[in-house]
Amino acid sequence: MPYSTGMKHVIIVGAGFAGLNAAKKLGNKKGVRLTVIDRTNHHLFQPLLYQVAMAALSPADIAGPIRHMLASASNTTVLQDEVTRVRLADRQIITSGGSLDYDYLILSCGSQHAYFGREEWEEFAPGLKTIEQATEIRRRVLTGYEAAEKEPDPGRQRRHLTFAIVGGGPTGVELAGAIGEMSRFTLAKDFRNIDSTLSRVILLEAGPRILPSFPVRLANKASRDLEKLGVQVWTNTMVTNIDATGVQMANERIECATVLWAAGVRPSALNGLLGTTLDRQGRVVVEPDLSVTGHPEVFVAGDQAHFDHGLAHPLPGIAPVALQQGRWIAANILLRIRGRAAQPFRYQDKGQLATIGRSRAIFQFGRLQLSGFLAWLAWLIVHIYYLIGFKNRVFVTMNWAWSFFSFRRGARLIISKEWRFYTSSRHDQKP
Amino acid sequence: MPYSTGMKHVIIVGAGFAGLNAAKKLGNKKGVRLTVIDRTNHHLFQPLLYQVAMAALSPADIAGPIRHMLASASNTTVLQDEVTRVRLADRQIITSGGSLDYDYLILSCGSQHAYFGREEWEEFAPGLKTIEQATEIRRRVLTGYEAAEKEPDPGRQRRHLTFAIVGGGPTGVELAGAIGEMSRFTLAKDFRNIDSTLSRVILLEAGPRILPSFPVRLANKASRDLEKLGVQVWTNTMVTNIDATGVQMANERIECATVLWAAGVRPSALNGLLGTTLDRQGRVVVEPDLSVTGHPEVFVAGDQAHFDHGLAHPLPGIAPVALQQGRWIAANILLRIRGRAAQPFRYQDKGQLATIGRSRAIFQFGRLQLSGFLAWLAWLIVHIYYLIGFKNRVFVTMNWAWSFFSFRRGARLIISKEWRFYTSSRHDQKP
Repeated sequence: MPYSTGMKHVIIVGAGFAGLNAAKKLGNKKGVRLTVIDRTNHHLFQPLLYQVAMAALSPADIAGPIRHMLASASNTTVLQDEVTRVRLADRQIITSGGSLDYDYLILSCGSQHAYFGREEWEEFAPGLKTIEQATEIRRRVLTGYEAAEKEPDPGRQRRHLTFAIVGGGPTGVELAGAIGEMSRFTLAKDFRNIDSTLSRVILLEAGPRILPSFPVRLANKASRDLEKLGVQVWTNTMVTNIDATGVQMANERIECATVLWAAGVRPSALNGLLGTTLDRQGRVVVEPDLSVTGHPEVFVAGDQAHFDHGLAHPLPGIAPVALQQGRWIAANILLRIRGRAAQPFRYQDKGQLATIGRSRAIFQFGRLQLSGFLAWLAWLIVHIYYLIGFKNRVFVTMNWAWSFFSFRRGARLIISKEWRFYTSSRHDQKP
Repeated sequence: MPYSTGMKHVIIVGAGFAGLNAAKKLGNKKGVRLTVIDRTNHHLFQPLLYQVAMAALSPADIAGPIRHMLASASNTTVLQDEVTRVRLADRQIITSGGSLDYDYLILSCGSQHAYFGREEWEEFAPGLKTIEQATEIRRRVLTGYEAAEKEPDPGRQRRHLTFAIVGGGPTGVELAGAIGEMSRFTLAKDFRNIDSTLSRVILLEAGPRILPSFPVRLANKASRDLEKLGVQVWTNTMVTNIDATGVQMANERIECATVLWAAGVRPSALNGLLGTTLDRQGRVVVEPDLSVTGHPEVFVAGDQAHFDHGLAHPLPGIAPVALQQGRWIAANILLRIRGRAAQPFRYQDKGQLATIGRSRAIFQFGRLQLSGFLAWLAWLIVHIYYLIGFKNRVFVTMNWAWSFFSFRRGARLIISKEWRFYTSSRHDQKP
């Protein structure tokens, strides 16, 4: 496409909370031509991804096509592509399909799971960042129960019914709570040969306590709530190895068929190629206006950025931070295009939340600390509110209501990775 | 589990329409112990599977866990397993996990796609029988549009926008109509670089007309309706080869990235191992009471069976036949257990239906022939009625209503087959 005179080309890489919200704010703005690039075709409402993994929601309930969400903006082009390099000096990005020049660039590629140099563990312990990973986790957890149902050997049956979750942050807590609840209530009545009390769910945390970003009182409350759902919380527990049959610690071993990884993330690999200052975790250390040092036309947002101006700690990698930064960057670009100065980012703290099972949560907002059912209601309201923009808001709410009152799991499907009958052995049906 | 004295063990292999309905009728019946075995963990409402492939519905909308559907029957055990052999003489089945003895056996394993000796075509032209295949078709169709959007070369762009469907039966017609409609209306406004009029949808049929099981007048009406949606209907067209870049016919070639297969089915491979009389397609030729000749304790139902007693043609492989046969066999087994004779099966003709796009269908019931919107309403009512038993009935109806009034596709997600980040190259994101 040829440039119109004076038209500025803005490229957004990654359509998560930061990228999508920046794109919405730049849509149909005069003097702006916008290209949004993402590796996938969908925006994902990540805070509810664990519910897809736990078979309570379908992928389409919490994800929607990016190009559809941005269809009403005639200045916006959406491309499903992978950005492989950024040439800051030439104001150009390289994709697998070619190259594009920009006047302003927003990098909002998010993060992925980190195995701290033990990448071979991924095969045995999937993380939870994408729809594909959520589906894989769902397949493993549900297959564990199916395998246990037909296993005559008690030792092997116990192994199928043991679930280890590595990492005691909000994701680990949410997964552990949901599996604990599923084992206790939802699945108990559907199986004939499983003694559901044999099922064990173990949450492993290397640090002295789970949910370190929350106040101690709330984290302890979460531990008690997890234990009520049958989850064993093991703190100060360092994992030394993970293989196909279990998890190894210094003096102990858990024999289990299913291990889930929620122990750490690292930002997009693109960061390493930029040649700018990164923090220890690999995030780009940004200027107060969220731009890259020396490149006022390049901005970084969300999990990919390290922002600590005027703060005791850098901002965490959570949805409200990404969303607010995306909007702020869009506003800064509009200011710059109109010849004015970019403004330093100010974060509005929205507090933090974590759910434990079907009706309990913890919620901290400034000095306010809630736990139990009231916190869970707060969690529900916040998440429904932020699903605005998704057509599925109503469906998701109804699906939740259904799960809540009936103790069922609406999407308990084991979907195989292989779609072919003929090229694979017909008898090899193991997922 | 040990037998109770006098308790009869019934095994059902395959929980499609036939197997599930037999199981429901045998659930909680005195003197019956029931085991249901299926390769997957879910029952599938197959008549709506093309809507999953076409991104209008999610898998969980039309599938549900078998064990949950049968949970209220305390005499019923559900196993996810693969039956590899039936030893008729010993009244025993062999599964990948062991062996089970039966007093009565119901085989209802359905059918799969047949490539008539050209199984290597499957890679380039998936069929539509499973959730996995529907997801694969969705991925290919949506990826075609995404690839076209970023393709500068007009020839290659046209190739991405050309869709060939092989086989003019109801499934082929439904797929072609849905893709035609998607190209014309739904996607047109979401893409910037695609000229949607470049999109071609071609339905290839080897015979002289599409929908041979319907009256000529209705089939012609369906052809006209397809053409209104931009679908080209090519009859008397024999496919001689399919490869990665297109479809070859005797004197012609279609260059296209996406080929779908709806040209033929064959029954379960288990049939060949039974040693009983099969028809030309490989179906078990059953007795009037649906039992296997010489084995009155073994019954075959649905797509796996050839039933032609008192009929001009054998019964077709459609849901109403499978459903009625499943129930009939259950009744016959209960009669036999109570010392009475099994009854010959009588089919209640429910007519036949096929939809073309969003608001047209053809419907034949005895002498009644309907087409257009009225037939589509009939189709809608019939399908909603038969979804009874699925919790998702309400959701599916609402999802439909949404798609219908908004011209959107609710589940337009491209989900990759690979869930891992580290073991695959991070830059290799092609689905």
